[in-house]
Formats: sequence, C-alpha cells, structure tokens
Amino acid sequence: MTHPLVTLITDFGLSDEYVGVIKGVILSHDTDISIVDISHRIPPQDIHTASHLLARACGYFPPGTVHLVVVDPGVGSERAMLALKADSHYFVGPDNGVFTPVLRAAQLLAVHRITEAGLFLPKVSNTFHGRDIMAPVAAQLATGLAIDKVGPNISPGDCLLLGTSPCSVIDGVLHGEITHIDRFGNLCTNVSRRELERFSHGRKITIQVGEDGGCTVDTFCSSYAEQAENVLLALYDSHDFLEIAENMGNAAQRFQVSAGSWIYIFSP
Amino acid sequence: MTHPLVTLITDFGLSDEYVGVIKGVILSHDTDISIVDISHRIPPQDIHTASHLLARACGYFPPGTVHLVVVDPGVGSERAMLALKADSHYFVGPDNGVFTPVLRAAQLLAVHRITEAGLFLPKVSNTFHGRDIMAPVAAQLATGLAIDKVGPNISPGDCLLLGTSPCSVIDGVLHGEITHIDRFGNLCTNVSRRELERFSHGRKITIQVGEDGGCTVDTFCSSYAEQAENVLLALYDSHDFLEIAENMGNAAQRFQVSAGSWIYIFSP
Amino acid sequence: MTHPLVTLITDFGLSDEYVGVIKGVILSHDTDISIVDISHRIPPQDIHTASHLLARACGYFPPGTVHLVVVDPGVGSERAMLALKADSHYFVGPDNGVFTPVLRAAQLLAVHRITEAGLFLPKVSNTFHGRDIMAPVAAQLATGLAIDKVGPNISPGDCLLLGTSPCSVIDGVLHGEITHIDRFGNLCTNVSRRELERFSHGRKITIQVGEDGGCTVDTFCSSYAEQAENVLLALYDSHDFLEIAENMGNAAQRFQVSAGSWIYIFSP
Repeated sequence: MTHPLVTLITDFGLSDEYVGVIKGVILSHDTDISIVDISHRIPPQDIHTASHLLARACGYFPPGTVHLVVVDPGVGSERAMLALKADSHYFVGPDNGVFTPVLRAAQLLAVHRITEAGLFLPKVSNTFHGRDIMAPVAAQLATGLAIDKVGPNISPGDCLLLGTSPCSVIDGVLHGEITHIDRFGNLCTNVSRRELERFSHGRKITIQVGEDGGCTVDTFCSSYAEQAENVLLALYDSHDFLEIAENMGNAAQRFQVSAGSWIYIFSP
Repeated sequence: MTHPLVTLITDFGLSDEYVGVIKGVILSHDTDISIVDISHRIPPQDIHTASHLLARACGYFPPGTVHLVVVDPGVGSERAMLALKADSHYFVGPDNGVFTPVLRAAQLLAVHRITEAGLFLPKVSNTFHGRDIMAPVAAQLATGLAIDKVGPNISPGDCLLLGTSPCSVIDGVLHGEITHIDRFGNLCTNVSRRELERFSHGRKITIQVGEDGGCTVDTFCSSYAEQAENVLLALYDSHDFLEIAENMGNAAQRFQVSAGSWIYIFSP
Repeated sequence: MTHPLVTLITDFGLSDEYVGVIKGVILSHDTDISIVDISHRIPPQDIHTASHLLARACGYFPPGTVHLVVVDPGVGSERAMLALKADSHYFVGPDNGVFTPVLRAAQLLAVHRITEAGLFLPKVSNTFHGRDIMAPVAAQLATGLAIDKVGPNISPGDCLLLGTSPCSVIDGVLHGEITHIDRFGNLCTNVSRRELERFSHGRKITIQVGEDGGCTVDTFCSSYAEQAENVLLALYDSHDFLEIAENMGNAAQRFQVSAGSWIYIFSP
C-alpha cells in the first residue's frame, strides 16, 4: 500500500516545538501521512538556502509528494501563499521566491493562491501561518484534494522570483558563484558540467576562490579519495555541478568564504 | 486507517544513539506506531523548558496520542514515573514537575504511577528508564493498553508540581516573565492577551525588558512584517501571549536576557 | 500489520538536504517503509563513532530491520560496499571498518559485496553512493530482497576491521579507554562490568581519568542521583560498561578529555 508523503523545509531549528506542531496538524488530518524532514536548519529567513535545498532534494521523492516550505519572514503581511503542481509533485509555501527553481521548470502545470479559509485551522494567527494555513493545506493535497480547491489559479509570472546569478564569461574568465556550503565544508557552485566543459574545451583549468586570489585550485578529480588527505580539489558534485572540496578536510574553513562569494575560473 | 502516535520530548540531543534506541523499543512493540519528535534539544535536565514545549505542542495532535517526555535527572532514584490521561491524550514521564501544565488542566481524567514490571523491558537499568520502562509503556498505551494496567491510580495532588510565576500588578506595573526564547530570538512571556487587555484598558503600553531598563518597547503590532527590519516590536504570539521580537532580527541578542528574566509593563 | 524498517547513521548533519534525499530514495522504492534516525551528527568521516553508536543501538530494533550506515570518506574509490546479515538484522554500508562490532558477533550469517548495478539508481555519481547505491539496496532488503541478490558472498575475514583497544591489566593497573562522550558529558568506556569485577574482586577502586592524574573518581554508585549535584561518580551504564559522570553536571568539561583518552583503574 502507498502512504501520502509530505516533506518539510523550515527555518524553525530543532530546539523549539514549531516543527512538532506542524507535524501534529498534518497528522491530525490523517495519521497515515508519512512526513520527511529535509532541513529545519535553514538560517532564519534565508529564502535562498531554502530554495537551493528544495531544488536539490525534491526530485528524489515519489510522484504525489507534497513539499511544504515554511521560511516565511512576511508572515501576517499581505504576501500570498502558493500551492504549485509541477512534475507530478506539489509545493506549498509563501510567495517570496522560495519556489523560484520550481517556477522556472518546464513541466509546471498549475499555480494557485491559497485563499480557501475552509481548509485552514479554525483560528488563524498572524505569526504562524505554517501551522494554521500551510500545514493543513499540504495535508489535504497529500491525501487527494484537487489543487484548484485551494484558491484561484494564477500565472507563474505573477509569482515572486529570486534574482539568480548565472555564471558568465567576462574577459575570458568564467565567473561563478558559491551557492551553498555543506556540513563538510564543501563549496557548491552554480557552474554546471556543461558550462565548464564548453568554457574549457578540455584544457586544464585553475579556480580562484574569492576575491583575494591567495588560494587557487588546479586539481580536478572524480572523487574526494583520489587526493591525499587535506589536499584541495575540484570535482563535479552528485548533481553535476562544480564543487570545491578538501579530502578529509574542510575547504570552507581554508578559504573563509560563504554562500554568495564569487569564484573565477581561468583556462590559459 | 489510523496509526497510533507517540511524540517525544527529551534532553538527549541528536548526536548520541539514545533517541534512536527509544524509537527502536517503541517500534519493537509495534512497527505501525508513528513517532513524532517535538524536541530533543531540551537543555540537559531542564524540566521547565520541557514542560513549556509540551504545553504548547500537545494540543495540536489527534486524540489518543501518547506524549512521552524523558527529561529525567532523577533516573534510578526513588522518583516515581507517571502515566496521565487528559483531554483524550496520554502522557508518560517522570514525576518531576514536567507535567505541571497538564496536571493543572480541567479535563484531567486519570493519573497512575507506573509500577507494572511486566510492561518493562526484561532488564531494567538504573540510568535509562526512558528506554527500559517509559518507552515500552508509551508504546503499549498507544496501541490500546488501558491506563489502569500500568499501576495504581493516584491523586493529581500527589504529583510534583513546578512553581510558576503568574504575572501580577504591583504599584501599577504589570510584572511578567520570559518563559522561553526561541530560535529566532523571540521572547515568549507568561502575559496573556486577556491579562494585558485587562491591565491596559486599551491605553498605550511601554514594556521594559530586564532589570536595567536601558531598552524598552512601545510598538504593538499584529505581525512581524508591520515593522521595518531590525525594529523591536511587541505582538501576541500564536498562542495569544505577549511576545517581544525584532523583525528580521534577534531580540534576545539585543536585550541579553534569558528564560526567567522579568519584564515590566507600564501604562501611563 | 508490520512495516519494513530502515535505520540511518550518517555524518551528513541536519543542515543540508542529504538525509532527506536518502529518505526520498528509500520511500520512492516503497512508501510503507518506516525510517528511523539513529544519528546524523557523527563527526565528519568518524568511522569509530559510527561503529560505536551502531553497536549500542541496533539490538533495540525488531528482527528484519535494515541498518544503513553512510560514513564514507572513501566514496568513489575502490573501497567495497557491504550488505551483512547478523542476528536477524541487516546492515548496509561501506567496507571501512564501520561494521567491526557486527562482524565480530557470533551469529553472523552472511556477508556480501554490493555489486548488482540493477539495484542502484540509474545514474551513479562518484560522490554520493549513499544515495545512489546504498539507499536503494537498503530499501530493497527491507522489503524482502534476498541478501544473496546484492552481490557475491565473501568471507567476514575479507572485510576491513577497526583496531580496537581491549582493556588490559599492566603492573596491577587496569587500563581502559574512553570510547564516547555523550551529550551530558558522561564518559563511556570500554571497561565491562565483568572485567572490572574480575579486576577488583569487590575491593574499592580509584579511577584516574587521562594522563595527568590531577583528578580521580572513587565513588561508585548505581544511579546519578545517588550523589549530590556536581559530584563526580562512576557507575555501570545501561549497557553494563563503566561510565564516569557528574550528577547534574558535565564530567567531560571537568576532565578535558576526549574519545580515545585513557583511564587507569587502581584497586589498592
């Protein structure tokens, strides 16, 4: 038998009761729903990181999964809440840009504003719409509610999108950006394998991380363990984007960079 | 179909195997039980925080849910262990005050000491009753064991209660307490909307946080986003208690206060 | 009805999407599988700690449980991946020593190398075999795949084992090792009740923690609460190994020791 699935991405952390309360609301609708935590340690109000994790995780879940994202600094204001259907997955969250990668996807089928108060908890606060509005809507979508019952259909173009920085070649140098630093100190970037191969034409490359240029990477590997311990290396990550890592070490500590920092790729 | 539900609040943290072991014991009784983490990051031995989170979370779960609380500095001593039934929920944990809000609730139906060794793991340690006694009892209550099978009925008045500090008006000033500081640095207080409205009669109020009085709040909002970024504000939280926050910021860092600190409310 | 069970031990932490992705892959195979986190906060690449937690946790889960361990610094290299069956439990993970305690167990039934690519995700990366290979294999074992379908049977003796330091008596002093420090600052050791009783013959013992000898423990208790607050004590932990603790305090902070430090037990 199959169970309905809801995944969660929030900035609630794991110390307070907020995540448990969201789960209680979902299970009060139907105890048969399986709930999967993707991350609750999004930095407070960090829509970019939530968006990045959602884009990298959602494709690994089965069709029909509802992805609920509660990173919602505008809670209680006039910002809208959205329910999306794309590639046989559902997405519920605030209209603040967190769904940018989903909205740019080709197979987007439907975007709705959440307005149908009959789906909400009986009492709606001004400070916790994740609990009062979005969790009950997510639970009901997971158990078969048609998406057009949550509120009016709108155009994807009416949704808020985050500005993104695609990588680009300037004066023969490929400019990319660090999109995320993971627990291992690995630097994820926005440079795809395709873009890097088009730039390098198979020639050797050198990567300068950050503005200062004191430290560069010129070893390209196919796995971490190809290098000795504590040696810097570049490779394609498991999504086929350029990643900079230190075998058995922490590249981010070495470079003192953060998400949003630039990298510069040279191919002499 | 419905699944039995057990929620967990512990001070075990997430690095060690203790939480997983508790879940293994519960699922060894019945793999059909759904287990929900409320928080495992209660500060070690902090019964007040566990009690606060339990009170705020438990009402969002469906009837029949068993709430297991393992914050148990007295493990292995003569302290009793309790099973409670209140408002169609069950509660299992040590008799150390952690159930104070539940015991004060009106709809309390039954309080039992846990003494029936036939329900425990075959070997009971002196250092991990959460695993050996409370988890198996919680699992069995979740799957239908009658509460009077766990041990003798006792009077709620025989249970240990935490001292609480209701807010009070002294010399025309409403004295309240910070009950919890959440991940966002928001200050939760024990001042309910009803008490504050009775005190202010709709007049403007000023809130002094902590003893020193160097910083006060006089902006009352209905949502965080009503203020500009990094502006302090007061509002009612999603449980209708006074909360002091900083939009897109961290009020706790600004004030350097902690749970237990006083607030003073003036209404000139 | 019973549900298949998979437990997880990883060094992925809880901030990134990696754990959620592993769960998505497992649930894409069968949404009926229950997944239990044992710990994701293994220090990066720390095979010893993962092995320690696995050994202490696995026995509390029901027969048929699959324990998936992804602490895998050698990912993408030639290191093998293993599926084990022991004591009616299954284990999946890299062949890097993490299964040492399982491989030393008496009831080991089968060890297989994972080679059957038809079980993997269609595209296998070089940096995330937990997702691409081990999670799908674990899910399939949980739902009934025979272990001999994952790849060739090998001898337990062909698996990598961690060196262990059994405690030993040298010049009348019992030398033991701190194996783990938990969230409460309690020092877990490799000294079993049987070994300590054989050494002490019921005489009083004194425990010196670390090399320097400035601090010793000579109070043996049966529970933490037997001592006053902030008093050091020794007891047998819930697995019947010697543990050094401070009631309501943090022994590890007091001693400034870490996993791997020595303890010396004297019985004059």
